[in-house]
Amino acid sequence: MVRALLIGRFQPFHRGHMHAVRYVLERSDEVVIGIGSALDSHSLRNPFTAGERIEMIIAALREERLPLERFLLIPIPDAPHHKEWVSIVEALVPRFDVVYSNDPLTRTLMEEAGYEVRGIPLLNREVYSGEEFRRRVVEGGDWREIVSEAVARYLEERGLIERIRKLARSDKPWVKVVP
Amino acid sequence: MVRALLIGRFQPFHRGHMHAVRYVLERSDEVVIGIGSALDSHSLRNPFTAGERIEMIIAALREERLPLERFLLIPIPDAPHHKEWVSIVEALVPRFDVVYSNDPLTRTLMEEAGYEVRGIPLLNREVYSGEEFRRRVVEGGDWREIVSEAVARYLEERGLIERIRKLARSDKPWVKVVP
Amino acid sequence: MVRALLIGRFQPFHRGHMHAVRYVLERSDEVVIGIGSALDSHSLRNPFTAGERIEMIIAALREERLPLERFLLIPIPDAPHHKEWVSIVEALVPRFDVVYSNDPLTRTLMEEAGYEVRGIPLLNREVYSGEEFRRRVVEGGDWREIVSEAVARYLEERGLIERIRKLARSDKPWVKVVP
Amino acid sequence: MVRALLIGRFQPFHRGHMHAVRYVLERSDEVVIGIGSALDSHSLRNPFTAGERIEMIIAALREERLPLERFLLIPIPDAPHHKEWVSIVEALVPRFDVVYSNDPLTRTLMEEAGYEVRGIPLLNREVYSGEEFRRRVVEGGDWREIVSEAVARYLEERGLIERIRKLARSDKPWVKVVP
Amino acid sequence: MVRALLIGRFQPFHRGHMHAVRYVLERSDEVVIGIGSALDSHSLRNPFTAGERIEMIIAALREERLPLERFLLIPIPDAPHHKEWVSIVEALVPRFDVVYSNDPLTRTLMEEAGYEVRGIPLLNREVYSGEEFRRRVVEGGDWREIVSEAVARYLEERGLIERIRKLARSDKPWVKVVP
Amino acid sequence: MVRALLIGRFQPFHRGHMHAVRYVLERSDEVVIGIGSALDSHSLRNPFTAGERIEMIIAALREERLPLERFLLIPIPDAPHHKEWVSIVEALVPRFDVVYSNDPLTRTLMEEAGYEVRGIPLLNREVYSGEEFRRRVVEGGDWREIVSEAVARYLEERGLIERIRKLARSDKPWVKVVP
Repeated sequence: MVRALLIGRFQPFHRGHMHAVRYVLERSDEVVIGIGSALDSHSLRNPFTAGERIEMIIAALREERLPLERFLLIPIPDAPHHKEWVSIVEALVPRFDVVYSNDPLTRTLMEEAGYEVRGIPLLNREVYSGEEFRRRVVEGGDWREIVSEAVARYLEERGLIERIRKLARSDKPWVKVVP
Repeated sequence: MVRALLIGRFQPFHRGHMHAVRYVLERSDEVVIGIGSALDSHSLRNPFTAGERIEMIIAALREERLPLERFLLIPIPDAPHHKEWVSIVEALVPRFDVVYSNDPLTRTLMEEAGYEVRGIPLLNREVYSGEEFRRRVVEGGDWREIVSEAVARYLEERGLIERIRKLARSDKPWVKVVP
Repeated sequence: MVRALLIGRFQPFHRGHMHAVRYVLERSDEVVIGIGSALDSHSLRNPFTAGERIEMIIAALREERLPLERFLLIPIPDAPHHKEWVSIVEALVPRFDVVYSNDPLTRTLMEEAGYEVRGIPLLNREVYSGEEFRRRVVEGGDWREIVSEAVARYLEERGLIERIRKLARSDKPWVKVVP
Repeated sequence: MVRALLIGRFQPFHRGHMHAVRYVLERSDEVVIGIGSALDSHSLRNPFTAGERIEMIIAALREERLPLERFLLIPIPDAPHHKEWVSIVEALVPRFDVVYSNDPLTRTLMEEAGYEVRGIPLLNREVYSGEEFRRRVVEGGDWREIVSEAVARYLEERGLIERIRKLARSDKPWVKVVP
Repeated sequence: MVRALLIGRFQPFHRGHMHAVRYVLERSDEVVIGIGSALDSHSLRNPFTAGERIEMIIAALREERLPLERFLLIPIPDAPHHKEWVSIVEALVPRFDVVYSNDPLTRTLMEEAGYEVRGIPLLNREVYSGEEFRRRVVEGGDWREIVSEAVARYLEERGLIERIRKLARSDKPWVKVVP
Repeated sequence: MVRALLIGRFQPFHRGHMHAVRYVLERSDEVVIGIGSALDSHSLRNPFTAGERIEMIIAALREERLPLERFLLIPIPDAPHHKEWVSIVEALVPRFDVVYSNDPLTRTLMEEAGYEVRGIPLLNREVYSGEEFRRRVVEGGDWREIVSEAVARYLEERGLIERIRKLARSDKPWVKVVP
């Protein structure tokens, strides 16, 4: 039995994520989807709560008729410091055999803790990315092509597209300037 | 579609919990099992990590052939203060219609936040309780009758019974004395 | 101009507190009432939020026709560790000349930080104490004589007496037993 | 009786804030001035402590002969995550009927929690802003026209103008660069 | 080169600790003394700051003419949860080969993380213990025989014996009662 | 006896730091090297853990045959807010007589707390800086001339140069853009 851990923020869960999920599912028996920065929400970088992201992911998995019983969806809050992050993952997630991630920080931390880390082939990353999605929502581009139909429906019915636009009405949404 | 939230610490998941799970499942379409004090572990009161508790619960649900696709297992860390706890639950859990709990604090907080809260009939609470389980492990009583066979097997194979006994080798494990 | 700092938890604001407030007011121009453990609530030891405690204190000050413009009511959250507590007080409170407190920890921390600390003569401490108030609410004694009429009215209208009784329905409310 | 909540950081309390205070006071019986990011200080974005900001606000309210007994000044620390922020406000502030704010995040969070949120007409925002004030202090412009005389006097007597200039002597004060 | 880690709270550093230090020093090249609960102080259980404990330890090591250059004294704050504690130790301490501890929790956490853990023969534990020391200070017993002369001198010159007695003037110092 | 406190992040400990250490050592009997942002690591700004930084510093002090027994190396975690930082330093560090620092924030906080603060003459700051070191590692410049031989050897043997390069493989390592 191979249990794989796939970690992301899923802000939102887009077509590139679904591609990754299929890739990992083919290579393991169970997939734990770890939802990172789980307690962050209501910012342009992290607009959705973990609960909302879980609803999106379930809607997308159902839409593709993937076997729900082979998935676990676990929200993972950020650690106070990077060095503690792996132990928070280990506390919240059932034992796993392999980690799938392309993020350099995630890879470094997991490798230093002794885990096997594998990369995931990316699908059209210029379009299928959370940053591109959020930019299109704010600037009025076609965000619908980035997510599946089920996710798009969920986002609109819950008023979550509108939430992003509201949050963007601050002066300088894209670059953090201090002060 | 009714989504119910059932909250507990599940230290460990025992026969009384299984009784509650069945009771809630009969009255709703989806059951979110919220695993409270999710980041606490390695104490006599909270010996197991959330990941270990999730493995126990899945083992028990499979043993009873309950429909896994109607469950969500969500670890919920403690809030810094009680007043923030409901908002942490709301952040981590998909929208829910009703909360099942017998705990006075959980009930009070959820009711003040406007949620419908229902009680659960308890099954033989003198025996089926986490506190009684942990006491029997430490004092050498029959802890096996408190949990299902699948949970007992999991606890032994992972050395978790032994962990409780090790932790109990402090001077006064049952009462916190300051200093 | 002498500004005095009077610190307490005010769970609830009782007749002994009013006695202390009058005592301090006679000896200073402005009184900062620092509401300690400000973010704690919904426990038997700290049943009320800081906002509720502020409403009680204002109701009591008005009832006694004390000059509101000579008071500041400042909620003070607990520090992560005792050594940081004075700096949190200094951050939240306007500069003060003297601290009034009978609590040994408060006195020790403030004295080590170089402040002048004075005691307050207590009024009938066996009756006028938050602990005695909460005990009477739970056990059905006469809690009304401990607080002023305005505070009693506020507590009942807001359902706060009932909150304490609900919270007390746990197994061992008065002594913390681990586990 | 209408109690309004007006939230800001007041770094410092400037003429635009006084305009907003008057606007809210005309439309309510009591005004709670919530001092946001209360524990932040000693940075270019948040140079002053909450205690210092309270002293400024009181000085300005007295200067304008506004009725102090209709105001409450409550420091509100930042929440660990946005989703918990409303519950921290609810814990620290007496019950309020309406929130006045122009900040998109504050508005979104309060509206999602079910509160009525109203905007405030801004007075000459290019000049009357905390950011403009701090920039003029650092670059040597006329910061005095941005605040009232009482606030200017307080800032100078306490050496707070000098504190901002000291803090600005780092390499890149205005833009956060990592690393 | 063998680097050993010896962890304790050292409230205060007593003759039993010195015995343990000698025992570990004989079996390793370098000894890291990890000062646990480093940010806790000003309570009966943890009366001294980490800085004060470091001064005590250095005074005692000098008194015994032990080679200071073979020691490192590292304050280790408590982790938010037990599961993160080992990673905090790993972050703060240079790489170590073996851990010396008799505490069941420390042993369990370190062993689960894969470290070699060894016990230390205790010297007259009924007398040489921090709890006994603090009890004697409060109740007026002979606390001097528990610590070395250099430590006793330090404690008196800095007024730290008096601090413990002040802190003990609360109602129920030895047992935590809630509320 | 003069005890001086020298605070830095030492990411890594470079030749400029050694120059400062010598400068302070000549002017005091004991030097406490406070290792700031002690729990931060695994980022481009703070790549090394405090334990790793301690190993570097000891290697460098030995290389220069400086008297180890006149040094204390104390990791100092960041405070939740600037105002609490001095009290965290005071908790972790033995009493000190003077602070050496060129950082405006450190100087301001320490001066407001009443400490004597002195500057340190900088040695060739364009080259000898942590930021320049990390930039050269990432961009392939000569980082070796910035640190001593002992530090360079340590960094390579432990794979820490490689860690920085791995962490740099994110999209925009040098400027934090939100989102």
